[in-house]
Amino acid sequence: MKILGIDGSGLVASVAIVEDDNLIGEYTTGYKKTHSQTLLPMLDELSKMIELDLNTVDAIAVSAGPGSFTGLRIASATAKGLGLTMGCPIVSVPTVDAIAFNMWGNSGIICPILDARRGQVYTGLYRFEADGTFTVIKEQCACDFHDIAEEINKLGEAVTFLGDGVPVFKDTIADIIKVDYRFAPAHLNRQHAASVATLGSIYYANGDCEPAADHRPEYLRLSQAERERMEKERLEKEGKA
Amino acid sequence: MKILGIDGSGLVASVAIVEDDNLIGEYTTGYKKTHSQTLLPMLDELSKMIELDLNTVDAIAVSAGPGSFTGLRIASATAKGLGLTMGCPIVSVPTVDAIAFNMWGNSGIICPILDARRGQVYTGLYRFEADGTFTVIKEQCACDFHDIAEEINKLGEAVTFLGDGVPVFKDTIADIIKVDYRFAPAHLNRQHAASVATLGSIYYANGDCEPAADHRPEYLRLSQAERERMEKERLEKEGKA
Repeated sequence: MKILGIDGSGLVASVAIVEDDNLIGEYTTGYKKTHSQTLLPMLDELSKMIELDLNTVDAIAVSAGPGSFTGLRIASATAKGLGLTMGCPIVSVPTVDAIAFNMWGNSGIICPILDARRGQVYTGLYRFEADGTFTVIKEQCACDFHDIAEEINKLGEAVTFLGDGVPVFKDTIADIIKVDYRFAPAHLNRQHAASVATLGSIYYANGDCEPAADHRPEYLRLSQAERERMEKERLEKEGKA
Repeated sequence: MKILGIDGSGLVASVAIVEDDNLIGEYTTGYKKTHSQTLLPMLDELSKMIELDLNTVDAIAVSAGPGSFTGLRIASATAKGLGLTMGCPIVSVPTVDAIAFNMWGNSGIICPILDARRGQVYTGLYRFEADGTFTVIKEQCACDFHDIAEEINKLGEAVTFLGDGVPVFKDTIADIIKVDYRFAPAHLNRQHAASVATLGSIYYANGDCEPAADHRPEYLRLSQAERERMEKERLEKEGKA
């Protein structure tokens, strides 16, 4: 079973090929280029290096959101286009779950925090059981950082933070987190398509996938353009009323 | 502080750039090509993608052995050549330590096993403390798998196995390991240059590095050619005696 993983949900662009228990290749960059300049060229380069015939891929796992709206659209469009061409299904992997899965086997609570701007984070709470089973304690959501901090303090267990929200909320964490906490190091603290592919292969084995034509990213929030349009419509309505 | 990580100790070829807490890029393949065909082209490709000026790199961390003799020579020669040209020091990271470091923050004991042929493994035992500190319980070594299994059973704690020895010794593990055990999943179970670079940056911060000219890989065992020459010399000596 061969699965292609794609992540474009944040600054990181990442592609990976996982076959059963083996990572055949992964190419990850955390650089300021836009994902339309990186994802497909990186996949093309990786495919050549590992002499991969894309038609042998069984499924495409994509980090389907939340995250950067443009990044998600590029990653999902890439996955969709490839899936339609290659005739293979798409596994939508929740972005926050995939980042938490970097920390496979960790002790304590895992809390990815992605900066969602305006004091908000995309986050969730996770745990690995003794046998390595991945448990979602709190499903991914968009919320104020203070809300997730309150839940962590209530759980009363040590927590590991990771994600691009860490540098943004480091001081706040020091101020308000009352349990022991630590920050994941550089090799594990951002998106990795290998995690998306490995977690995706578990979902796929459970039959959790969709035809490429049906795939859509999950933004979890309205985009700025949508918020502005709704606000404009509301004001117009009030003006009319 | 910018560090280049290189791993060619096994089937995997991997290069990565870590800057402080950020993975700027990683390119990893687990494919049958020889590392002389992969490591430098992959570094060249990655450098172009992230617009990296190699002269801005502060140190090169290389997975310095044990492992595949040819792979280690290619990786160390690459690191040495680059270090001499770029005028930067080399951090020799023990291969088994670097693989264990993939599992940062894990609960229980970490036991990488690399297939060293003839029933032997390159292995070691590690633990992550609650604050994330990486503790070496047993330094990397070459031994019979049964010897490390005995030590694991004596420790009496749950253990996570990873590395290319896992498929080779899976049945033996089921037979003789008496504690709870689990196997690391695909995204974490082999060499990653990002781990080499991240662990290497800790060593570097502690002043643990060497001039590129002084760097040598650590084979831990004699090569087959050396063993055969010694055996031949021994037989000749006995013949003469």
